[in-house]
Amino acid sequence: MFNIIYAQSGGMTPVINNSAASLIRTAQKHSDKINKIYAAKNGIIGLIENRIVDVTELSEKELSLIGNTSGGIFGTCRYKLKEDDYETYEKIYNTLKEYDIKCIFYNGGNDSADTSNKLCKIKEYFDYDLICIGIPKTIDNDLPFTDVCPGFPSSAKYVAISMLESSTDLKSMCLTSTKVTIIEIMGRHAGWLTAASSVWKKKESDSPHICLLPEVEFNEDKFLELVKYFKEKYGYCTIAVSEGIKDGSGNFVANSKNVDSFGHKQLGGVGIQLSNLITTSLKYKCHCMIPDYLQRSCTHLSTPIDIELAKAVGRSAVEYALEGKNNVMPMIVRKNSTPFEYEIVDIELSKIANVEKKLPANYIKENGYEITKECRDYLKPYVFDENFSLYQDEEGKPIYFELD
Amino acid sequence: MFNIIYAQSGGMTPVINNSAASLIRTAQKHSDKINKIYAAKNGIIGLIENRIVDVTELSEKELSLIGNTSGGIFGTCRYKLKEDDYETYEKIYNTLKEYDIKCIFYNGGNDSADTSNKLCKIKEYFDYDLICIGIPKTIDNDLPFTDVCPGFPSSAKYVAISMLESSTDLKSMCLTSTKVTIIEIMGRHAGWLTAASSVWKKKESDSPHICLLPEVEFNEDKFLELVKYFKEKYGYCTIAVSEGIKDGSGNFVANSKNVDSFGHKQLGGVGIQLSNLITTSLKYKCHCMIPDYLQRSCTHLSTPIDIELAKAVGRSAVEYALEGKNNVMPMIVRKNSTPFEYEIVDIELSKIANVEKKLPANYIKENGYEITKECRDYLKPYVFDENFSLYQDEEGKPIYFELD
Repeated sequence: MFNIIYAQSGGMTPVINNSAASLIRTAQKHSDKINKIYAAKNGIIGLIENRIVDVTELSEKELSLIGNTSGGIFGTCRYKLKEDDYETYEKIYNTLKEYDIKCIFYNGGNDSADTSNKLCKIKEYFDYDLICIGIPKTIDNDLPFTDVCPGFPSSAKYVAISMLESSTDLKSMCLTSTKVTIIEIMGRHAGWLTAASSVWKKKESDSPHICLLPEVEFNEDKFLELVKYFKEKYGYCTIAVSEGIKDGSGNFVANSKNVDSFGHKQLGGVGIQLSNLITTSLKYKCHCMIPDYLQRSCTHLSTPIDIELAKAVGRSAVEYALEGKNNVMPMIVRKNSTPFEYEIVDIELSKIANVEKKLPANYIKENGYEITKECRDYLKPYVFDENFSLYQDEEGKPIYFELD
Repeated sequence: MFNIIYAQSGGMTPVINNSAASLIRTAQKHSDKINKIYAAKNGIIGLIENRIVDVTELSEKELSLIGNTSGGIFGTCRYKLKEDDYETYEKIYNTLKEYDIKCIFYNGGNDSADTSNKLCKIKEYFDYDLICIGIPKTIDNDLPFTDVCPGFPSSAKYVAISMLESSTDLKSMCLTSTKVTIIEIMGRHAGWLTAASSVWKKKESDSPHICLLPEVEFNEDKFLELVKYFKEKYGYCTIAVSEGIKDGSGNFVANSKNVDSFGHKQLGGVGIQLSNLITTSLKYKCHCMIPDYLQRSCTHLSTPIDIELAKAVGRSAVEYALEGKNNVMPMIVRKNSTPFEYEIVDIELSKIANVEKKLPANYIKENGYEITKECRDYLKPYVFDENFSLYQDEEGKPIYFELD
């Protein structure tokens, strides 16, 4: 019999609470081996500061509501454990000892995998047996090995729908009003979420006309030429831009002096900058949409596959611990696209920590502003939602009427 | 037997195409009196430039898809008819004569009601019998007489959900990251849509903590004090701000030099300005969400009552024409809130043109940054959606789990 603890870390996703609920549910089912189920408030900080809640007795109704809840139910943190910070590791050790916790489940992205991985210091410093299992989540979709990160599919759906709806609005208006729209999309170094804007794009006239990925160097002159081309040809131009695009010198186009606690630059603002550039250089009226947190908290748009995968990794994490596995993270392997089939495999945390998976070269067209069929085929099953509110085609794209 | 024409004008709404489909469907049913059904491309401009489509034979399947479609299916315009522009009226007259059109249906807001109203010049100048019926739509919800403007309920739902989801995300993150979020909401002079951010707010800790309405003078010092109060009390502060808030001198806080063709200032940017103000003055990390067009093209979030009302005004417009009414607009009278019941009445266009209905004083609390129970009671039936994707309470608010 042993006690376990669960914690959430990093930026939230629309479905992270489904992993939490599934993990707790699975642990409850193994009450022959697992005694107490705890959760740490605000990730690793809850362990450092001894802010722990007992969730062993949560009812099925409460677990359902947790899955229904946006944000991170236990609070999260951005906090980087230092390699040699003995005092902090001692605080964590004291909390673990007080609650007799032998297993930590850390639900996060690649920074969080780094945290999980460093927790083995506890064993080293204090000779304390500790199982540490990571659980993947991130709307950035940039974890290696896994086909997808839970959270990404729902955010991808949000971005795809937002792109489609706003471009239809612009098309209606462009004759006498706005000519260009820009949607600024999250994803610091990897363009997965920005690419999702183009999942239903089949021809040049489909939106977004221009998809600016962080994997592709931004060239101002080429960009302005493209905007002009689309505006002249179709009457309007729609743009999806990653917050993380860089210029030829490798500097973020959205140059900000703020950094978060991991030393990452706090971005945001590239949309406004491009909007100003277009207005100044081409004199086109331009609107900029910045969904910001809305694209990662959009629980109302959670796709069924995303909810299922979030639950699967929560469940698998508990099963791994029961099988005696340690320092691993459950990852998703795609077995088939239509119908979507997958399996869960375990990967060592040390292989995941601080690694960022970018869009592969064959997912980006040679022109640098469109995605390939391979990329669309990759994305399609994740944005599909059989319960979606509008009539849709087999790819999950709402079916719109078009005048001849 | 006579021919009719339908046109869409001004900013789009999530459900305007439901009015279009319903109008066409109703007209088809009266084929004993109505011969040809036309639509003008890009509103009044289609009539001026003779860009007309025949929609008499659209199938029920096509009409359903029109209702499923975001934006404005026939294109819209921002174009102000001048009082004495004989040449332009003559062009419209020529188009009407060519297609033997005796009835215009103009689907728009208060600027569009002005356009509809001016079309009686045709009769005056050319002795041409013309029935002119307006159809209400605007996410701004600022038309007089009507309880609500079709389009507003769905956009209100979008704003309410966006406020709730993003604030849950912020609450999860605020210990080590962002402390303040701002959502910038459309509505130039009337705070209806901004108020919708607060429809589910029952206590001080509920979001938004601060709701900045255009009806209330913005005071920078008082605002910063409030942000500090909420951040210190709850660890974070959530703000909904109308794009149209003004300072003590009556100037827009988002001061922009761009104007649209009606001479309205093109706003946007107040969120970024407040964000900078907070970061500079209080040193709080702040994120700003600018949904912009997303809040008026969110067809995937259309509420059932909004779709029903959009259809009802489209249908009533045709019925008014058949009854021989002229220069009127169908408006919505609320008969009961729970369950929601309404009736449609006709109001003269001249009474509607260029009038903007603001939030009444009893909808705004004395503190100036919260709405009253009266306002919440007004809003509630419009944001309710019995088919919503999440578990929800009887007000349509998703039920979230909260740790004790």
